[in-house]
Amino acid sequence: MVSEGSHALEKLFFPKNIAVVGVSSSAKHFRPDQGRNYIQGSIAQNFQGRIFPVHPKAKDTLGFKTYARVSDIPEDVDLAIFTVPATVVLEVMKDCIEKKVKFVHLFTAGFSETGREDFAEIEKTMIKMAKDAGIRMLGPNCMGLYCPEGGLAFQPFFPHAPGHTAFFSQSGQMAGQFVYKAADNKLAFSKVVSFGNSSDLSSSDFLDYFLQDEKTKCIGSYIEGLKDGRRFFEIAKKITRIKPLVIFKGGRTEGGSRAARSHTAAIAGSYQLWKSFCKQTGIIAVTSLNELVYTLSAVQRLALPTGKNIAVIGGAGGGSVTMTDVAEAEGLTVPRLSDHTIAELTKIVPPHGTSVQNPLDIGPAMMGEQIFDKLAELLRDDPNIDALIFLQPVGMIKRMGWGREGVDMMIKTTLKGQEIMKKPIIPVVEKDDNEGLDFALMAEERYFQAGLPTFPTFEMAARVVNNLADYQKYRSKFE
Amino acid sequence: MVSEGSHALEKLFFPKNIAVVGVSSSAKHFRPDQGRNYIQGSIAQNFQGRIFPVHPKAKDTLGFKTYARVSDIPEDVDLAIFTVPATVVLEVMKDCIEKKVKFVHLFTAGFSETGREDFAEIEKTMIKMAKDAGIRMLGPNCMGLYCPEGGLAFQPFFPHAPGHTAFFSQSGQMAGQFVYKAADNKLAFSKVVSFGNSSDLSSSDFLDYFLQDEKTKCIGSYIEGLKDGRRFFEIAKKITRIKPLVIFKGGRTEGGSRAARSHTAAIAGSYQLWKSFCKQTGIIAVTSLNELVYTLSAVQRLALPTGKNIAVIGGAGGGSVTMTDVAEAEGLTVPRLSDHTIAELTKIVPPHGTSVQNPLDIGPAMMGEQIFDKLAELLRDDPNIDALIFLQPVGMIKRMGWGREGVDMMIKTTLKGQEIMKKPIIPVVEKDDNEGLDFALMAEERYFQAGLPTFPTFEMAARVVNNLADYQKYRSKFE
Repeated sequence: MVSEGSHALEKLFFPKNIAVVGVSSSAKHFRPDQGRNYIQGSIAQNFQGRIFPVHPKAKDTLGFKTYARVSDIPEDVDLAIFTVPATVVLEVMKDCIEKKVKFVHLFTAGFSETGREDFAEIEKTMIKMAKDAGIRMLGPNCMGLYCPEGGLAFQPFFPHAPGHTAFFSQSGQMAGQFVYKAADNKLAFSKVVSFGNSSDLSSSDFLDYFLQDEKTKCIGSYIEGLKDGRRFFEIAKKITRIKPLVIFKGGRTEGGSRAARSHTAAIAGSYQLWKSFCKQTGIIAVTSLNELVYTLSAVQRLALPTGKNIAVIGGAGGGSVTMTDVAEAEGLTVPRLSDHTIAELTKIVPPHGTSVQNPLDIGPAMMGEQIFDKLAELLRDDPNIDALIFLQPVGMIKRMGWGREGVDMMIKTTLKGQEIMKKPIIPVVEKDDNEGLDFALMAEERYFQAGLPTFPTFEMAARVVNNLADYQKYRSKFE
Repeated sequence: MVSEGSHALEKLFFPKNIAVVGVSSSAKHFRPDQGRNYIQGSIAQNFQGRIFPVHPKAKDTLGFKTYARVSDIPEDVDLAIFTVPATVVLEVMKDCIEKKVKFVHLFTAGFSETGREDFAEIEKTMIKMAKDAGIRMLGPNCMGLYCPEGGLAFQPFFPHAPGHTAFFSQSGQMAGQFVYKAADNKLAFSKVVSFGNSSDLSSSDFLDYFLQDEKTKCIGSYIEGLKDGRRFFEIAKKITRIKPLVIFKGGRTEGGSRAARSHTAAIAGSYQLWKSFCKQTGIIAVTSLNELVYTLSAVQRLALPTGKNIAVIGGAGGGSVTMTDVAEAEGLTVPRLSDHTIAELTKIVPPHGTSVQNPLDIGPAMMGEQIFDKLAELLRDDPNIDALIFLQPVGMIKRMGWGREGVDMMIKTTLKGQEIMKKPIIPVVEKDDNEGLDFALMAEERYFQAGLPTFPTFEMAARVVNNLADYQKYRSKFE
């Protein structure tokens, strides 16, 4: 089903027919062929239009009739993907102009990002040719598009089911890793786009598209530099009132900035400036791709916490101390519970080797529904607490021989507690212990099914909860 | 085989016979019984002496004849482990004095750490009784001992083979998690001790023991506060010249300090002070248990880097930028390679979509031995570079369908490169991608067999390399 929006970029994500230029007719072992990936990706995503491979000599590519030039293709082409060497792009562009192609996407790299003037010159000429002909360009130096609904994918292994998460990325590697990591977290995608050097279409264009795109409810991004900061700023301010926008910016150190220049010719700018830019626009700024994915997972699955006062449970003594350190280092507070909560807990929790202070350590009793129900009720009514982070002892359950029954009990207790408490309960399911890995993956799966996110470390949970509380504070100004 | 040292604590780790006081005769589902754990742990570790359970009513525990009182035991007892309620410890202590027990270990909790004066009073009386009788005390409020060579373990599931890593911990939870995580990294243990409130035996006593213990080559620790900082300082200075000492200190934030007081009655002190203390003594200070384990793994398996200038390889463009950001945020530098290195690499690496700058992006060629051999040779001779962090694309190898053959090739290339380069090569094998998990575990196993450490994230690798470079700098002052 092709979406019928009227935005100028709609046909980029939903082209009728596509040409893949420069694809080789046979694959070599240990040498990925990106041209073939585009074709296989579209097959895997059940692309509804026609696919036209283009190659000077090949007659057939993966079962598709192959044309010598774009201008030889017998039907209209909305999108031409260039996987040719940089030296022949001007020639291919001429053909695209003749063919009245609407969009070109250049996987081809080796332009301004090399720092060489002759290559930058080719890029300039190419941009001018496209502009004069009214062709919009994606790239150069980028992986391009993944849109399950439109039938496009830059890798053959991407999931098929469409969803509500969008991602735009200056790096193809980040875009690919994003898809895999987000899919591990059972997120599904509206549109993912890697745009590289952004010689024509840039971050702001995609942001503008996602603002009006009804299929997109939540947006992530990896960027290295902005070419039109003012426009980006204005659109971001509109978006963040209605859709969460989470951005991972590369090039925050001196070495990273230098690497960004040679990667996408981007000027990274000061990271301090970037942070204040995010604060003003309600953008959730993150510092790793993992943090981005877990923030997007949480923001779609949890109510936003109305403050940063966190109850913590699930560690024994040493864990209580170190989890508190981590939470407070991440910007949260682990406060005293109210006197009422402490008094009530004292009645039901055995006194020795436990703690009814925060962090809570109520022993194996925390896995029993009755005591946890009561705890959830007390935390619901405790004005000192905005959310609960619950470290789930899956490794311990496995080693104690409590089996899947033990994991079931823990999950059931947590989900019931979530219903009672009405403030976010954030389950942490650690995956850094080989022995407990199978139980951890099982628990993770179950939480996703129940609509809750999970986090692989307490640190990540604390960081994300802090992000969500900041975003809630920003949004509350407009409510 | 019992080690024949003369240190006062030798019989604590190598007792002839042990008594476990307060163990119940039957286990309850979902209620761990720590007394039974000590007995099962000793059986699992093939303890060579006799085990005497003590309980007022039971006749038999796990097949061992059970005595009503410690004073009823017919043989000498070097170590009595208390798992009784706090209310009866004074009575049991009387029996131990009568029996001329050498060491008591109190798993029992509920003393000064509760903040209640009556409980603190019992602790004081107990300490005085033990002291007057010449009995040394471990705890109270701790898990106690794991010494594979001595046949002791506080959990039944700990590995059997002895090794060279020691760990002393104010938290039993941290001690247990340490063993599991370190065992995942194929480390083996000389002695692990959880000492809780340290009412008698404290950090300094264990440090003093490990200083002279020939079986211990490398020491880790989790502490919350120091009761005798001056003595600890003096011993630490001696140790760090000959054995790495890695310490994770809990209670570095306000909330964490408060939690530490209610956990082990420890006064956490200022974290700034702690850091300068570590700098002066050559202690490697870490901020998480994972960082501690990976640092101990690296320090036993890598040559210490002689500086902080790092070459990075294995990410494409976006990864290059973000890995550089992470490395520099962790205190490392990702410098330009020498002109000679760049010129030589330019001859063998294809120009487009690659980078012979640092971070290096030489495409799939990095997996081919010939080019990587040459790279290793160039980095060996490059004065700008002290070490190489190599992100291993195991997830990509899996998805590309290159199979185990692809992983083998990558590992072979890395190991050969390590031989040529003669500076540390640090492999990062990411484990945060469910799809690639089986390949990651396989690669990890192979690196451990080959004597190299691996790291689950680039961030952890960078942090640990930074720790090792600091430690090398400290040690070089004494060489």
